[in-house]
Amino acid sequence: MATGHIPEATVARLPVYLRSLTELAGDGQSTTSSDVLAELAGVNAAKVRKDLSYLGTHGTRGVGYDVRHLVFEVSRALGVANTWPVVVCGLGNLGRALANHTGFTDRGFPVVAAVDVDPGLIGSSIDGVPVHSPDRLAEVVADLGIAIGVIATPGGAAQETADRLVAAGIRSILDFSSTVVSVPDDVEVRAVDLSTELQILGFHLQRDLPPPGDV
Amino acid sequence: MATGHIPEATVARLPVYLRSLTELAGDGQSTTSSDVLAELAGVNAAKVRKDLSYLGTHGTRGVGYDVRHLVFEVSRALGVANTWPVVVCGLGNLGRALANHTGFTDRGFPVVAAVDVDPGLIGSSIDGVPVHSPDRLAEVVADLGIAIGVIATPGGAAQETADRLVAAGIRSILDFSSTVVSVPDDVEVRAVDLSTELQILGFHLQRDLPPPGDV
Repeated sequence: MATGHIPEATVARLPVYLRSLTELAGDGQSTTSSDVLAELAGVNAAKVRKDLSYLGTHGTRGVGYDVRHLVFEVSRALGVANTWPVVVCGLGNLGRALANHTGFTDRGFPVVAAVDVDPGLIGSSIDGVPVHSPDRLAEVVADLGIAIGVIATPGGAAQETADRLVAAGIRSILDFSSTVVSVPDDVEVRAVDLSTELQILGFHLQRDLPPPGDV
Repeated sequence: MATGHIPEATVARLPVYLRSLTELAGDGQSTTSSDVLAELAGVNAAKVRKDLSYLGTHGTRGVGYDVRHLVFEVSRALGVANTWPVVVCGLGNLGRALANHTGFTDRGFPVVAAVDVDPGLIGSSIDGVPVHSPDRLAEVVADLGIAIGVIATPGGAAQETADRLVAAGIRSILDFSSTVVSVPDDVEVRAVDLSTELQILGFHLQRDLPPPGDV
């Protein structure tokens, strides 16, 4: 059985472990070590062992971890066995990319509906995803049992979209709008900033530059 | 002056602090506290103080941190004063969204070129970004001083795209392909998995479910 409380920092690393483990399994590896997982996940081996211990999983000395068992345990902790239907709000390029992202469905997050203000899109279907008016959001969420709302609108429409999602009963929001939205305390918003990783690359590039004056 | 070595985990949080500080400045706040920054960045206040101390920045007791000074220090540490031109490889919906993402330019990562295998796109311009054949990548990288390559191709084309970027002299790659690409040791690849945050939301949703059998 999974143990009780899992720290948030560990939760944030579980998807990374799951991806690494899935790769190892795909490569035909049946066992692995905390060193290998650490390398794949970009953390240190002690942290891997600690993280996995929260799942009640410990490697065997001299053998390591059983990959398939670990995939099962991490998946279970992440609730991958469950399916959480998603609505994508805003069908610009990013919204279309998200609505069409097979990686979501594969991981238990099927995009079952989209909303957009464009009358030319409402009533149509984008890559098999039906497009509705934002006015119908509450109805669509209830009909389809939608659990998660994705905000892919321009920044200026993000707060209004969040308000509509909350009014429709959504309690989990993924926000790609690069703005901060206000929601009630019982609603969880996770923001994805596509620039974050670029800024980390930029930090390392800068460190490789010669210091000013050293020409 | 910024101090010497900054731990990787701190580097990863600097973009989050910068975004939070920019919001505070936009709201007209001239000073802030580690508590406020901790809340905005989703970490604890002790970690904020420790992270900022690596930049040589310490708050003033009873006053806190000067927001504009901190924006300057974090920006400098991140190399935001520098500009790192970007090429986007693959112009599906995601590639177009990235090529068109004003947040990149705002943060010093202008998308100056794109490559795609579609003959119908080569030679055209998408949102002002010229589209080239992948065969011309080395030439385009050299001509425009491109520092970072973004992989937005389907997974099946990701490794070939990475190989082309490396052959063109690129040493920093941002990979949106949901696959793992192999590159030489002196090339840094950062992978963005759009599902990671959804999986964290899913973890919390699952925790809110009644335990099995408890109906």
